[in-house]
Amino acid sequence: MITEAPMAVAVIGLGSMGLGMAKSIARSKLPVSGFDLDVKAMAALAQIGRVGVSPADAVKGCRIAIVVVVNAAQTRSVLFGDNGAAKAITPGSVIMSCATMSPDDARALARDAEALGLLYLDAPISGGAAKAAEGQLTVMASGSAAAFARARPALDVLAAKVYELGDEAGLGASFKMVNQLLAGVHIAAACEAMTFAAKLGLDLSRVHEVIKASAGNSWMFENRGQHIVDGDYQPRSAVSIFTKDLGIVSDMARQQKFPTQMASTALQLFLMTAAAGMEQDDDASVARMIADLTGVSIPRRRMEGS
Amino acid sequence: MITEAPMAVAVIGLGSMGLGMAKSIARSKLPVSGFDLDVKAMAALAQIGRVGVSPADAVKGCRIAIVVVVNAAQTRSVLFGDNGAAKAITPGSVIMSCATMSPDDARALARDAEALGLLYLDAPISGGAAKAAEGQLTVMASGSAAAFARARPALDVLAAKVYELGDEAGLGASFKMVNQLLAGVHIAAACEAMTFAAKLGLDLSRVHEVIKASAGNSWMFENRGQHIVDGDYQPRSAVSIFTKDLGIVSDMARQQKFPTQMASTALQLFLMTAAAGMEQDDDASVARMIADLTGVSIPRRRMEGS
Repeated sequence: MITEAPMAVAVIGLGSMGLGMAKSIARSKLPVSGFDLDVKAMAALAQIGRVGVSPADAVKGCRIAIVVVVNAAQTRSVLFGDNGAAKAITPGSVIMSCATMSPDDARALARDAEALGLLYLDAPISGGAAKAAEGQLTVMASGSAAAFARARPALDVLAAKVYELGDEAGLGASFKMVNQLLAGVHIAAACEAMTFAAKLGLDLSRVHEVIKASAGNSWMFENRGQHIVDGDYQPRSAVSIFTKDLGIVSDMARQQKFPTQMASTALQLFLMTAAAGMEQDDDASVARMIADLTGVSIPRRRMEGS
Repeated sequence: MITEAPMAVAVIGLGSMGLGMAKSIARSKLPVSGFDLDVKAMAALAQIGRVGVSPADAVKGCRIAIVVVVNAAQTRSVLFGDNGAAKAITPGSVIMSCATMSPDDARALARDAEALGLLYLDAPISGGAAKAAEGQLTVMASGSAAAFARARPALDVLAAKVYELGDEAGLGASFKMVNQLLAGVHIAAACEAMTFAAKLGLDLSRVHEVIKASAGNSWMFENRGQHIVDGDYQPRSAVSIFTKDLGIVSDMARQQKFPTQMASTALQLFLMTAAAGMEQDDDASVARMIADLTGVSIPRRRMEGS
């Protein structure tokens, strides 16, 4: 007797995160399909799964559609735009939405998906491309019990840790935005502190070592501080991610009449860095911007291709 | 045959840090003496060591004088003021200066101590009162090899980790100021993020749990975030410490024509909190200030004595 076919999973958006997720799914033996506008990403997908010609085509035969695009607008477009996934996927399937966005956007997308008879999981992720490919992501998820149940095979394969944060869309997004507020502030602070240390004539490698073991440490100081010590600004995560994410925090806060002075100051530093031409470089480039501005010398490794 | 008497150590400044250090020294069987203006602190010292009537009196018979007062001005006063320690202690002894201060102040104090034939260790500490009493401090120290050698018996007793950061005064202070810049920014960010989370209607205990395990974490978020979750603003470290320390960062940066936007914004938040009457409360009180300002509800535990 042959049991029901394993649940097919579509991944819409094949950037480094989406492609890593597709790899994890393929490795688990679940059938995987996907779609992206980028030809190179599609060629990579073809090695491990079915390439769709549109979001609608990619989700055919799938009961789980993971959307891993840049923001809420792109999520809306691939779900509800021309050849969108939402009308093409079987009712009762789950949309697992992973882009960082405001809780309002997450709630609106959930409403529209549910109006079409779909389940919706508000499921921002964290961990970066390497952890996506290893199936070791952290997922900050909220949604109905039915949405969690339907998404479970994918969650099991993709995540080391799934936080179940409540039964409605918007909660996952809210937790993620609070995390991004802190992450962005901590990157900016790490860059300010390391360039200030350079101005004081301190050895940055020693500063990194001492502070990592002290009360001034943060996850970002530890991680991005190493990029500054190495003078390595190849983008692991780009400045543009934080102009976007702290932009969302700023919009949310203004709408709620809630002052966020630390996040707003950090946003300005990321905008200064983007304006200085480093938008696509590693987000630790805030340190290069400050160093360039002040004439302070910090390590510089020549970037590949430059 | 009786060997040389163990080296006596004086502790000038018996706040929670200094008293903890005196206890660690007494426990190690080194003779300890001390001085403070506070009568209660002196009574506590009397249980374990010799009470001096002045800094000059406290250092009699000692070869190590540890100065653990609030800032550079107090350090100068207890060393070089009326009945100061510097002229009273035997030449060749070491002054171990632990207050957080600018590198310029540390260098000036070292020069003046050395002019009297003393050794000087620029030795800011971190770890808090509990670790002081356990002999588990971190010391960020710089000074001559002779100063380190002379201070060694005290360092061995007081510190879990001694960073030897160079052979001149000012380096220890510089490392400490970079640490304080980050620590202050991270406290302010933790307070902003937690109150923002409350505004979004999130459960703060859950926020703390999730972010502690995510890229938004910092040592301070983990530590002070718990105070906010508990609504506990009994001062472990007071707002006044950070108006002081970020004030020093701000003075140093302005003098060097170096912009420190993150630190300056954090300083403003601590000043707002002090201005609102919470200067002597726990530094996580920035969260209460923001909550009071915005009308957001966060946990509040009634404070002892209030």
